Amino acid sequence: MVQLYEDERLDYLLAEENLRIIQSPSVFAFSLDAVLLAKFAYVPIQKGHIIDLCTGNAVIPLLLSKRTHALITGVEIQERLHSMAERSISYNQLEDQIQVIHGDLKDMPQKLGHGKFDIVTCNPPYFLTPKKDEQNINEHFAIARHEIHCTLEDVIRVSSQLVRQGGKIALVHRPGRLLDIVTLMRKYKVEPKRLQFVYPKAGKEANTILIEGIKGGNADLKVLPPLFVYQDNNEYTKELESILYGKE
Amino acid sequence: MVQLYEDERLDYLLAEENLRIIQSPSVFAFSLDAVLLAKFAYVPIQKGHIIDLCTGNAVIPLLLSKRTHALITGVEIQERLHSMAERSISYNQLEDQIQVIHGDLKDMPQKLGHGKFDIVTCNPPYFLTPKKDEQNINEHFAIARHEIHCTLEDVIRVSSQLVRQGGKIALVHRPGRLLDIVTLMRKYKVEPKRLQFVYPKAGKEANTILIEGIKGGNADLKVLPPLFVYQDNNEYTKELESILYGKE
Repeated sequence: MVQLYEDERLDYLLAEENLRIIQSPSVFAFSLDAVLLAKFAYVPIQKGHIIDLCTGNAVIPLLLSKRTHALITGVEIQERLHSMAERSISYNQLEDQIQVIHGDLKDMPQKLGHGKFDIVTCNPPYFLTPKKDEQNINEHFAIARHEIHCTLEDVIRVSSQLVRQGGKIALVHRPGRLLDIVTLMRKYKVEPKRLQFVYPKAGKEANTILIEGIKGGNADLKVLPPLFVYQDNNEYTKELESILYGKE
Repeated sequence: MVQLYEDERLDYLLAEENLRIIQSPSVFAFSLDAVLLAKFAYVPIQKGHIIDLCTGNAVIPLLLSKRTHALITGVEIQERLHSMAERSISYNQLEDQIQVIHGDLKDMPQKLGHGKFDIVTCNPPYFLTPKKDEQNINEHFAIARHEIHCTLEDVIRVSSQLVRQGGKIALVHRPGRLLDIVTLMRKYKVEPKRLQFVYPKAGKEANTILIEGIKGGNADLKVLPPLFVYQDNNEYTKELESILYGKE
């Protein structure tokens, strides 16, 4: 049994039929971007330690737990989301593999140490902090979507501090921030190595990027095959269905 | 009539049935990349002044002449290629629109003035300068392919000097240099605005990038729909046929 508050639901986690996740339409529900990142990120299979920043309801740690035996630490600043994450982990009996810290990612290098993690993942807030009166009225959404508690530079600086030399940092973001991301990665000694563009449909501009860098790596960027979300008839492409539902 | 030397040929210029171009398999023949750049670059239709650096046998000016009435200046450092370019322009009776300077692009800002051009295009040498004994034995190929006479930074610095505020710079290059290109563009006050990846085939990594920046522009990068060269059966895609042969 699991305790659900207000409009929270215990949803299935897509392809992972034996995993469920607590979400709430008014507070936080995971996005396609998180699923794409969990699929894109390189993870060690047998051991290691992964940290997921801005983890929300721990959707990325939960998805990654199906791909790796590594330990996974999530960090979430919002108490309500942290509570959803903890209850989901407990419901799925993953307490031995996944731990979620309620705190500010900017405090993590001091708290957890420098260079202790093999992999950092993060689906950060996408939007620059707007003026107060333009912010989303729902504070939970505002924090998840806007750079209120952390900027893109915070995310990349902290990721670089947390990851070991040769370790990997994987992010999902919008194409408009690509240049800022690569500039900041290089500033913090993380070399972008794999880049994938996600297009809503053939013939449309990309609306999402997946990018992975290596701490202290050499310059050698690969641009992966493009990923299309919808077919012309507005159904998911076979590739997306495979990612979402595990169909081949 | 046109004078052809050694193994030079008077080839047709693809879709432009009434344009012909002098090339030589042992000296220089234009590539798909040049054709893609000539299609990708924004050009004014009625007037303006375009400059094409590393113009080779003037393939880009010749192709652009079908899209614009603007004046086009090419710059080529190799005397043999400059001669091919001049003879092709003369054969096509385009002397009033296209002029090709035999010289070093690094001298052009002083020679032609700063901020005088609306558009700069360049299909530069792709490869870092190798050790002498690893260079292509054919000097013409070596200069066209390796950064022997100009580095990527030379190309971008000079382009930024030649173009007016608000003018555009369009380049074709390899994905491995994308980060250097965007870093150098920003260093020289050129903001990357349009980026397109060219994939040899669906499911393969990109092997070419097309990128356009605006001098003094605001940050707002768009990633255009991907371009695939071949279908699974190794025939050109419809999109490529349209670019190459004007088929719809």
